[in-house]
Amino acid sequence: MANNKSQVLLAQTGMVLWEVCVLFLAVLSVCECEGPGLVDAVSERRAEESHRQNSAIALLFTLLLTATILTTWLFKHHRLRLLHETGLAMIYGLLMGVILRFGVHVQPDLIDAPLTCVFNSSPRSLLLNISGRLFEYTLSGEASDTPREDAPNSQILKKVTFDPEVFFNILLPPIIFHAGYSLKRRYFFRNLGSILSYAFVGTVISSFVIGLVMYGFVACMSAVGQLGGDFFFTDCLFFGAIISATDPVTVLAIFNDLKVDVDLYALLLGESVLNDAVAIVLSSSIVAYQPSGSSSHSFEGEAILVSLGVFLGVLSGSLVLGTATGFITALVTKLTRLRNFPLLETTLFFLMSWSTFLLAEACNITGVVAVLFCGITQAHYTRSNLSAESKKRTEELSELLNFLAESFIFSYMGLTLFSYQNHVFNPAFISGSFLAILLGRAANIYPLSFLLNLGRSNRISNNFQHVMMFAGLRGAMAFALSIRDTSTYARQMMFSTTLLIVFFTVWVFGGGTTPVLSKMNIRYEHTHTNIHACSLFHMEHAAWPIRLWYKFDHNYLKPLLTHSGPPLSGSLPACCAPVARCLASSQEYKSVQQPHDDDSELILNEGSSLLYSDLLISSDDPSSGQAEMTEDTPAPTQEPIQPLAQSLSESLRLRL
Amino acid sequence: MANNKSQVLLAQTGMVLWEVCVLFLAVLSVCECEGPGLVDAVSERRAEESHRQNSAIALLFTLLLTATILTTWLFKHHRLRLLHETGLAMIYGLLMGVILRFGVHVQPDLIDAPLTCVFNSSPRSLLLNISGRLFEYTLSGEASDTPREDAPNSQILKKVTFDPEVFFNILLPPIIFHAGYSLKRRYFFRNLGSILSYAFVGTVISSFVIGLVMYGFVACMSAVGQLGGDFFFTDCLFFGAIISATDPVTVLAIFNDLKVDVDLYALLLGESVLNDAVAIVLSSSIVAYQPSGSSSHSFEGEAILVSLGVFLGVLSGSLVLGTATGFITALVTKLTRLRNFPLLETTLFFLMSWSTFLLAEACNITGVVAVLFCGITQAHYTRSNLSAESKKRTEELSELLNFLAESFIFSYMGLTLFSYQNHVFNPAFISGSFLAILLGRAANIYPLSFLLNLGRSNRISNNFQHVMMFAGLRGAMAFALSIRDTSTYARQMMFSTTLLIVFFTVWVFGGGTTPVLSKMNIRYEHTHTNIHACSLFHMEHAAWPIRLWYKFDHNYLKPLLTHSGPPLSGSLPACCAPVARCLASSQEYKSVQQPHDDDSELILNEGSSLLYSDLLISSDDPSSGQAEMTEDTPAPTQEPIQPLAQSLSESLRLRL
Repeated sequence: MANNKSQVLLAQTGMVLWEVCVLFLAVLSVCECEGPGLVDAVSERRAEESHRQNSAIALLFTLLLTATILTTWLFKHHRLRLLHETGLAMIYGLLMGVILRFGVHVQPDLIDAPLTCVFNSSPRSLLLNISGRLFEYTLSGEASDTPREDAPNSQILKKVTFDPEVFFNILLPPIIFHAGYSLKRRYFFRNLGSILSYAFVGTVISSFVIGLVMYGFVACMSAVGQLGGDFFFTDCLFFGAIISATDPVTVLAIFNDLKVDVDLYALLLGESVLNDAVAIVLSSSIVAYQPSGSSSHSFEGEAILVSLGVFLGVLSGSLVLGTATGFITALVTKLTRLRNFPLLETTLFFLMSWSTFLLAEACNITGVVAVLFCGITQAHYTRSNLSAESKKRTEELSELLNFLAESFIFSYMGLTLFSYQNHVFNPAFISGSFLAILLGRAANIYPLSFLLNLGRSNRISNNFQHVMMFAGLRGAMAFALSIRDTSTYARQMMFSTTLLIVFFTVWVFGGGTTPVLSKMNIRYEHTHTNIHACSLFHMEHAAWPIRLWYKFDHNYLKPLLTHSGPPLSGSLPACCAPVARCLASSQEYKSVQQPHDDDSELILNEGSSLLYSDLLISSDDPSSGQAEMTEDTPAPTQEPIQPLAQSLSESLRLRL
Repeated sequence: MANNKSQVLLAQTGMVLWEVCVLFLAVLSVCECEGPGLVDAVSERRAEESHRQNSAIALLFTLLLTATILTTWLFKHHRLRLLHETGLAMIYGLLMGVILRFGVHVQPDLIDAPLTCVFNSSPRSLLLNISGRLFEYTLSGEASDTPREDAPNSQILKKVTFDPEVFFNILLPPIIFHAGYSLKRRYFFRNLGSILSYAFVGTVISSFVIGLVMYGFVACMSAVGQLGGDFFFTDCLFFGAIISATDPVTVLAIFNDLKVDVDLYALLLGESVLNDAVAIVLSSSIVAYQPSGSSSHSFEGEAILVSLGVFLGVLSGSLVLGTATGFITALVTKLTRLRNFPLLETTLFFLMSWSTFLLAEACNITGVVAVLFCGITQAHYTRSNLSAESKKRTEELSELLNFLAESFIFSYMGLTLFSYQNHVFNPAFISGSFLAILLGRAANIYPLSFLLNLGRSNRISNNFQHVMMFAGLRGAMAFALSIRDTSTYARQMMFSTTLLIVFFTVWVFGGGTTPVLSKMNIRYEHTHTNIHACSLFHMEHAAWPIRLWYKFDHNYLKPLLTHSGPPLSGSLPACCAPVARCLASSQEYKSVQQPHDDDSELILNEGSSLLYSDLLISSDDPSSGQAEMTEDTPAPTQEPIQPLAQSLSESLRLRL
């Protein structure tokens, strides 16, 4: 039976591969037939040819994604958890890269040989008088000084390896927004302290440990003469920062399938979401620490202060900006009755979220980080103002864009291994960095878990710690950060090494999750009651800053931004009454009787009746509470804990 | 009461405007503060600055769209049908254009003054050695020879007026795909003959009439000395082609709200969808007729044959390509069980539809036209293979992208009136073209309607003809075609004139629809029974080519590509039995008993039991038929005829 199944699988995979090959050959024949036309000097024709080539390349990526989707389906259909879709995307990308590198031979375009002329400045646009006609050229960036080893088809390879800023401006924002928007807030906030520790303190520790270990390695390599160029201490720190961003998407997908412990899930997901932000900001502060103009690479007290300032400034700026646009969206959706027109509502939601990114970029803050906080705010406030229809639409849209962007990045990664032409593979550096990331991850997880366990009533067990250590995969963020600048020898070596680390961790760690979970004895599938008991136990001991925040959120922010919570006029002082009246909606007063606050179980402190109010009321009307809960659960495919929520509210009702 | 309402409306519009202004000022302050930094020569900084400016401009458009959405909501909320969202988008665009043109003063970037150097050819990329560092420049196109009248802030205006190819490659495809995917096929196919006549014959007639009238005008103007440059006969024909593409989106939205006669709706929608394709292909054939290199602008028999060949080739090529990718998607969704994973299914659908565009562009056929046929095929075959979840998702996604792209194009149109710097407003030409489009539209509608009425049992009444004449608005397609190339004097004049025509028709004709409808006595709202009777009467007289097509579709294509229809093994000859077995799904045999074919009323010919089979079966099981019908109705917001469909099937059941 199993044999039969695998035969069918093999046959179907073969079919998919064959289809892709046929389509690919069709594309290539299109590419090939463009060859002779290129010599024509008429600029319009050339632009047209270039457009056709671009279309062919985009088509190629589309086909890669299509093949990934079909194979993902096959794997899901046959319940194979060996390889996640990201791993698959990488394999297809690799195959395509090999074909492009070694299989295709395009006649080089002779006229493309660079012409050199000397100016004193670099204008942004340039008018060239060519045989009496004017042509406009725009600056596309500084070219590397190193002579390129020209592959026979370097032109196509160069086209396939497009501008890396695309990652930052188009592909990362939807991924990061989705992470924020689909975060299970209930479990996230419950473990907030630990998550923040791992994400902020842990990532900083990890990046410094990696940086120091790498500095040791690089010093040794330099002494032995194994190093082909400069590699400064700041480069080591930069490498530590970019490689510290974990991306356990593969592991989490398996956790989700297997319905693993929710706290472990929340810890891993929360950490990986926030440490992406930390890694971006940290790496940009390190770049700010060492400006490109100056040649000093030593320690300087002032410069460290500057980077610390940049780090804090960018982080808080992004937080403020992302939260602000989230608040504006919440207010707009609250005060208007857009909910009668789901299309308008969804579009507004999408535009406002995207404008966060643009606004942050225009203000010189990192848009990707702002988008993360915007996503969290949108999920916490705006979502509850949306109509049921729009809730579904926004979730689906965010899920779709995330899936597309993620598959694209991973298949692009596979492709770059062969299409990128300035790789520097240094075996010593590579093995050193594998060791360094292990040490860095260990220095993040084990000491912090020990410290956190001192304060946590619900201890993070040793097995949990081992799984978190194991789940330290590297993914899209590390890649995007490393490809952003590959102008120097050090950066090229980092890029190549990062690529290998991503491949290795996704395939080996991602594929090994199921055996590791069973070996580590992590409870799954049949242990709902167990989780339930332990979660309840834990929730009664929330730290005071979190309780304070919840109070503020419940009394002021939620009534201000959504239709739930007590009326603002009650919680605000008397002098603010006109403001409160202006911001209160008629719906709000009604909703005091029937709250729809899906975060009500954020903290369940039996001592404080205020924090409890939502649940007290909701337990009066069991049907509405139940309905609300199912309506408000975020991405339904990612909800391993729905029965828990229900049994939880039931048990509470019994006790009251 | 009405007064009170309008006051509220005014106040709310004011609020929206104020919000936009505040946000806009925030953006401008960002733009302004970039000024001093620009003098810095470090290229990285400059690229960063440029990125920030781009972000600010994108943010500006996002805000425009947001304002449009909010105001659209206000108008819908207060049931104002005076101005459609496209008209609103144009007004906001205009306002923004005025502000950018006259309100903002940015210090010109001194280094941006063009440098001139002389080469013999125009390379695609250029390496410049600037103070010892290499910078790469890429060709962005031929610059116009005409000296620019330099506005004080021409730099920003130039940035806002970005590459027009964006329209063709990013904005038009979703609009056109949506038109195809959401076409009410039942009503479309029923009026297929008339729609094809109006779209193909009518558009060709219209463009030639406009071309000839304009040629007369241009000749007169040239004689009087009113013309500032060359304007050849081919230019006139080109103008006729681009301005013949109608876009009655405003009118149709009102029809939809008012539930106007379905046949009139189908005629207008079908015509406008197909004549976009005809206009694109026609204009590109005219360009092919008169290659840019040659300077002969006279008639040549050979060249006419060439353009006729191009016309037919591109049209049939796009048809084949679009249909082919539609077929592939249908087969993939039929043979795999992707329907268990709606996310994968939706993504695959999206990618395959987009690859149509890319494949067509790579093959040098017009992608936009291919996408139209792909949309129709996807709706007809693939849609019925999708899971209910994916059906909804694909519709919503297509609706969202369409809405975004359309709002963007229209607000961009408003902006260009002031931001574009090479306008040529020639009063004589403009008034001439207004006359010409009236004549052209009349020459399309009235004679064709007369001829069609000879063959139609359900006559197109005079009032219908007047409404069709009136609904000849120009929109996104005319604009996109006219902005594509604005290098010569003639093209610039066409562009400016097209812009004015779009403004005028959208505001005046769009706003005047409701009064015209009531004056023309077009039945609406309360006349369902009436429509019903007339539709049934009409359906009994389908032309033979359509009946033949339906037979083929029903016996071969539907069983091949979907799970509905009779099993293939029955309709194919015996020798093809293995093929039939291979392509048949287990589901197919089951579904013979319970068809879910929402096109079953395509043609209702009481004589032919074969064509009737679907309905006969569905009437055995009223509940399933009913359920199927509601599940399968496309975009629910655009369904003015649902009650009709139900009463129709009920009346049939009674008769059987």
